[in-house]
Amino acid sequence: MTVTSFNPPLRTLMGPGPSDVHPRVLSALARPTIGHLDPQFVAMMDEMKGLLHHAFQTENPLTIPLSGPGSVGMETCFVNLIEPGDRVIVCQNGVFGGRMKENVERCGATAIMVEDDWGLPVDPGKVEDALKANPGVKAVAFVHAETSTGVQSDAALLCRLAQEHGALSIVDAVTSLGGTPVLTDEWGADAIYSGSQKCLSCVPGLSPVTLSRRAEDVIRGRNHKVQSWFMDLNLIMGYWGDSGASRSYHHTAPINALYALHESLIMLREEGVENAWKRHARMSKALVAGLSAIGLEMLVDETARLPQLNSVKIPEGVNEAEVRRRLLVDYDLEIGAGLGALAGKVWRIGLMGAGATPKNVTLCLGALQAVLTDMKADIGHGDAVQAAQKVLMA
Amino acid sequence: MTVTSFNPPLRTLMGPGPSDVHPRVLSALARPTIGHLDPQFVAMMDEMKGLLHHAFQTENPLTIPLSGPGSVGMETCFVNLIEPGDRVIVCQNGVFGGRMKENVERCGATAIMVEDDWGLPVDPGKVEDALKANPGVKAVAFVHAETSTGVQSDAALLCRLAQEHGALSIVDAVTSLGGTPVLTDEWGADAIYSGSQKCLSCVPGLSPVTLSRRAEDVIRGRNHKVQSWFMDLNLIMGYWGDSGASRSYHHTAPINALYALHESLIMLREEGVENAWKRHARMSKALVAGLSAIGLEMLVDETARLPQLNSVKIPEGVNEAEVRRRLLVDYDLEIGAGLGALAGKVWRIGLMGAGATPKNVTLCLGALQAVLTDMKADIGHGDAVQAAQKVLMA
Repeated sequence: MTVTSFNPPLRTLMGPGPSDVHPRVLSALARPTIGHLDPQFVAMMDEMKGLLHHAFQTENPLTIPLSGPGSVGMETCFVNLIEPGDRVIVCQNGVFGGRMKENVERCGATAIMVEDDWGLPVDPGKVEDALKANPGVKAVAFVHAETSTGVQSDAALLCRLAQEHGALSIVDAVTSLGGTPVLTDEWGADAIYSGSQKCLSCVPGLSPVTLSRRAEDVIRGRNHKVQSWFMDLNLIMGYWGDSGASRSYHHTAPINALYALHESLIMLREEGVENAWKRHARMSKALVAGLSAIGLEMLVDETARLPQLNSVKIPEGVNEAEVRRRLLVDYDLEIGAGLGALAGKVWRIGLMGAGATPKNVTLCLGALQAVLTDMKADIGHGDAVQAAQKVLMA
Repeated sequence: MTVTSFNPPLRTLMGPGPSDVHPRVLSALARPTIGHLDPQFVAMMDEMKGLLHHAFQTENPLTIPLSGPGSVGMETCFVNLIEPGDRVIVCQNGVFGGRMKENVERCGATAIMVEDDWGLPVDPGKVEDALKANPGVKAVAFVHAETSTGVQSDAALLCRLAQEHGALSIVDAVTSLGGTPVLTDEWGADAIYSGSQKCLSCVPGLSPVTLSRRAEDVIRGRNHKVQSWFMDLNLIMGYWGDSGASRSYHHTAPINALYALHESLIMLREEGVENAWKRHARMSKALVAGLSAIGLEMLVDETARLPQLNSVKIPEGVNEAEVRRRLLVDYDLEIGAGLGALAGKVWRIGLMGAGATPKNVTLCLGALQAVLTDMKADIGHGDAVQAAQKVLMA
């Protein structure tokens, strides 16, 4: 076997993530590795916490990047907050609610499911009913931004319902952080996890999390040891803890990936997270205008649509995989397929972080219209690119 | 808070890891991110498996990099192979055997401890006695290369003993892979995990693992679900599995870190893993000759000493933290402190991967002798650097 260095193609990433990574972030990633206990690295970790406070809009002391992808963020929240015998209300309106259920059950707890159709937000009325019918549940868990459908649920209301019934709230913000408002303290959320590779436009592999003081108390007061040694926040707090002097070794931090996240959070801070939210909203509006011009319909109603993840219904009779293949091969453009129940029914077009730009909106619409036209798809006769420009120039 | 881009100092990393990362690897790391289902990325993953086969000296189909640090490798092996109620013989002769015990217990299993002094290898006689006294144990777990002490245990013999008694073997090769022989198939080992940031000289954050077909069967035939969703190899196999066409999404792979590992494995293949083992041995011999010349003693007897991790006894009366601080500040050189029971008693000098060079040996000895002399430590009057050169020139 002869193997040579891998030189990836130069893709434009407009799927559900990873998103386009800015050259500033790639450049930070490649800086020389130093030790995870080096005083200069430790100082950077402290800065990182401050930057994450801005991104999460929180003052929670326990706000750190975990050394694994978003799935590690999810599992860390569940294994630390949930114990065997607990009952947890899990809202499912897509793939990731199902993964929450798996997590609850693997903790030896019971998941009480509140289900909504894929493409709809979580129904707060059903959650309230479930809370009333099940007094004493430990937590309410829901996905703020369902990456599988492009739906946003009302996190403020769901967190408030949990709190009113004495339950913790566990929120999946993998796709929302940096792209649409995540207001940790205003919501009174207890545990929120995200991912580095969506609207933060960092490389995949890190999961920023924030936990309330109430959640910290729950973790410190557990009856059983956390079932995962790697994800045990009691141990991780010893490394990321308050006092710079006494950090204790838990595992070797992914040094270079943390350089990259630090840089991407600086970029978010420079722009200001509120401005980032506005930019995502504007780009999505332009994209949707372009798609409408050629008769393509969105899966999700405007009131619950995520600007950073746009699920588009595939027109009748179109070989959707062939469309994605041609976009990739002819235009170096990646868009996402449908996942789970939506496989073959939608495309997922991401406008995340550094990729939420007029340039990407224009490329995507131009290429998609060209490919669909060439494949003789039954689409409208408007001009997608021109329709988008009207929004962008407004 | 004003935060600027992080520009790390240019350290020479001679601690217990992370080790020096070669510029070729850093350059690969910074290449443009592509999707984790991109056909070109999938092709790279297939190459990676072949490269890992060479590193691990195995034909095991289930040979992949996990998306987390070495602790994820360890926990993945335990949570997949061990079930509640199982009994596992855990050999402890340093920090990492203790972590194995934690893992076993958090799986709901019982750890039968075989303990040896820190600085000694695992005693195979004690392991055999434990196997005889506890028929039906599920596995024998041990650390091949104890990063906390610098000791190498006889993995071939320990794996054979496990096999003779019908037990699986679980081997920690975090510090050994690429630095000292890891002969998976020859040993008949069932599960071996490693880390990217030691003798592979890649950035921290990935854990290569290899599991035997017997181990795969055990995982497929479990009675209980794996307690960790993220580490469930039944699910991970769906993504890294044999058939390129039908990969299913589990989690977003850490794309850029995998570029880096691919490159570091190519470098290992170019050198040849046997030559890498010889280079590590030669550099350690030179380092030890230099240390001896100034009267510094090694913790570990030559017969069990790891060439890539050299534990040196701290001379009486020396402020060891101040020595490390001066090496770091004045020479940009990191060496490791003692860990656990050896804190304050030894320094750990790593010669790992791209850092196992005459250049690093020379720098370390020259700087260490200068600092100790300046601090008026009671050391010998030889010339450390010159003593090392005699070995290097031989």
